[in-house]
Amino acid sequence: MCELLGMSANVPTDICFSFSGLLERGGNTGPHKDGWGITFYEGKGCRTFKDPEPSCRSEIAKLVKAYPIKSVSVISHIRQGNRGPVCLENTHPFTRELWGREITFAHNGQLSNYQDLQPEHYRPVGNTDSELAFCWLLDKIRQKYPSCPSNMTDVFRYAAKLSQTLREKGVFNMLLTDGVYVLAYCSNNLQWITRRAPFGKATLIDADMMIDFQKETGPNDVVTVIATRPLTNDERWKKMQPGESALFKLGELVS
Amino acid sequence: MCELLGMSANVPTDICFSFSGLLERGGNTGPHKDGWGITFYEGKGCRTFKDPEPSCRSEIAKLVKAYPIKSVSVISHIRQGNRGPVCLENTHPFTRELWGREITFAHNGQLSNYQDLQPEHYRPVGNTDSELAFCWLLDKIRQKYPSCPSNMTDVFRYAAKLSQTLREKGVFNMLLTDGVYVLAYCSNNLQWITRRAPFGKATLIDADMMIDFQKETGPNDVVTVIATRPLTNDERWKKMQPGESALFKLGELVS
Repeated sequence: MCELLGMSANVPTDICFSFSGLLERGGNTGPHKDGWGITFYEGKGCRTFKDPEPSCRSEIAKLVKAYPIKSVSVISHIRQGNRGPVCLENTHPFTRELWGREITFAHNGQLSNYQDLQPEHYRPVGNTDSELAFCWLLDKIRQKYPSCPSNMTDVFRYAAKLSQTLREKGVFNMLLTDGVYVLAYCSNNLQWITRRAPFGKATLIDADMMIDFQKETGPNDVVTVIATRPLTNDERWKKMQPGESALFKLGELVS
Repeated sequence: MCELLGMSANVPTDICFSFSGLLERGGNTGPHKDGWGITFYEGKGCRTFKDPEPSCRSEIAKLVKAYPIKSVSVISHIRQGNRGPVCLENTHPFTRELWGREITFAHNGQLSNYQDLQPEHYRPVGNTDSELAFCWLLDKIRQKYPSCPSNMTDVFRYAAKLSQTLREKGVFNMLLTDGVYVLAYCSNNLQWITRRAPFGKATLIDADMMIDFQKETGPNDVVTVIATRPLTNDERWKKMQPGESALFKLGELVS
């Protein structure tokens, strides 16, 4: 299995604090030692840092932890491989272009009997069930919406509906973003928290690290963090239900 | 204008030496301060580091320079923007998936009257002439080869032929790779060198740095480096002619 981390914010925000907690689970406080990745959106563009090395001892992860890249939409993943060997092409997140937009995806779980997923337009590069499911999702979306619709909420609602089909094949917790919206779909383990004024303090579960958000944020900032398991031990995270989806736009829950 | 750097090798090789020289041209010994990027292939996967910051003072560039990622195919680019503002989505290299393979592209030059390039299958995310040309190239390749042909040399020969059409629209020096082959197409400025035993020493033009390749390589290593301008001052680089292409497979010139 793996762990997911996502962020949706109304102002470009760094994710160093949450990412620091996640990284510890990549071979230190957790067993997810089979690579890690993180995708940051900046404007219409995005950039991904990934490494098949365990995140707790990755040089690139150290840089990402220390260098505050500010973004309104972030997806991250640490991997404990099940389907597909440990290598770069099997490392999440995965990104594909659709309608001239970068779409990024990461998955936690495991699917069975997924051989009937045969995407034509998008093809997996690696051999994970996750990338195959992502290609299938995008194929279905592209079939239904050959050009970019004016209402992106509909697209993400459709992605959540398609995720129900994938959940029937096993465990399918996932994060999907186009850089403006972040969709969280829960199969069994996914929780989220929205931070806004008045901001408080929070302490990481996995590392000896505390943050006072009041010192780090503006009064109008809204920042949602989504994770497989809560990253802090002194905040109230909302646990999602099996089959539930949550769509965030720039920090706010919209659907 | 911009500068290109490519590498094709028969064993996974780091590009730290050449990349160090290129980086200096990104705002220090050269004017290419509008971002930089580098894509490394490892197996079927690839990873890209990019930054709209000038390479000579980019934290991420420092990491890439110091951390020897070993690869058989690398494409890098430093940008001095002409078409399209300085932002992440306009930063080369660009990567798209075709037939389940990652294809990566970077361009040096400037095109005019490119509005008739209207790719349907692949769409640009940013607004550079370069990414549009790349999408158009991939569209054409996909039309001609709906599935992956057994002979990839044909595909790259076709890409070189298409590049002739693009050269008619302006300056089109480019590098294109699928991780096994690296195609260099010259419009006006592109040079390459193949290093093999007996290896010698080389000195960078843009930084106070010398390397003794004999100490860094095995006796059977073959490493080709392609660049807009020679990076070393004590080796003989082969200058390509306008309209000339060179296709390398794992270090060796094959077409």
